[in-house]
Amino acid sequence: MSQISNYIFDEISIGQTATYSRLIGEKEVLLFAAASGDVNPVHLDAEFAAGTIFKERIAHGMMSGAIISAAIALELPGPGSIYLGQSLRFRLPVKIGDELTAQLEVTSKREDRKWITLDCVVINQHGKTVTSGTAEVMPPAEKLIIDRPPLPSFQLEL
Amino acid sequence: MSQISNYIFDEISIGQTATYSRLIGEKEVLLFAAASGDVNPVHLDAEFAAGTIFKERIAHGMMSGAIISAAIALELPGPGSIYLGQSLRFRLPVKIGDELTAQLEVTSKREDRKWITLDCVVINQHGKTVTSGTAEVMPPAEKLIIDRPPLPSFQLEL
Repeated sequence: MSQISNYIFDEISIGQTATYSRLIGEKEVLLFAAASGDVNPVHLDAEFAAGTIFKERIAHGMMSGAIISAAIALELPGPGSIYLGQSLRFRLPVKIGDELTAQLEVTSKREDRKWITLDCVVINQHGKTVTSGTAEVMPPAEKLIIDRPPLPSFQLEL
Repeated sequence: MSQISNYIFDEISIGQTATYSRLIGEKEVLLFAAASGDVNPVHLDAEFAAGTIFKERIAHGMMSGAIISAAIALELPGPGSIYLGQSLRFRLPVKIGDELTAQLEVTSKREDRKWITLDCVVINQHGKTVTSGTAEVMPPAEKLIIDRPPLPSFQLEL
């Protein structure tokens, strides 16, 4: 079983980076709809989506937020972090089948509160920025190296 | 079948409100993990979570972002909206079984760009604010009243 680890405040330096990638396929979009209840037809209905500015189905914009959140939770600073805030600017649509990569970079450390600021960019497989923003995070108080929990597995019911 | 409708820019007034509620149960948390790949054990592993500041498993913070996004996509302005940006401040943890309600209020209309700004608050079933923020949205260009797509149904594979 693979493991995940974290960085405590004192181990983090300005300029430190991390990435997290995920393929956003048909199933991921339907899972996101099922989790959030967001059945906006631009995500679910190909015929409806064909008549929109996007011309085809797209992923939920907040999927990029979820990918940034996963990067923070799993990579930098990792498990035990407390997520304080996030800004997001949705720049380009995410198409079904796009591979997204969240790129994080530490831009500031606030010694008094033990918070850090991360610059967050999500790019697609063409290297285009689809979403950008800034996160504020309190890194974990305790160093951890733990087994990576298995991804829950779901079957679509037709 | 129920229907969803939207508000075009000229139909929207400052102070206009909408709400969207969703129960965040065990299944929704696992669906969010499966969609995003975020297997942070604070969301999935009760034993690990018991040793954290939260004392029990909590939902992903970005679930609140997904609930706000659903409120924008389904209620105000509704389908056909273009989501431009979102800020989020995570104030309290969301526990498994909490019922979240996103409350939206239009706070400004920008006539030149046809954008609106929405104040966004997510409260739990105790009326406590778990997340707050601001959204920037371009309302739909065209009035729509459409059938609400069914929520995708998934079965957890154990």
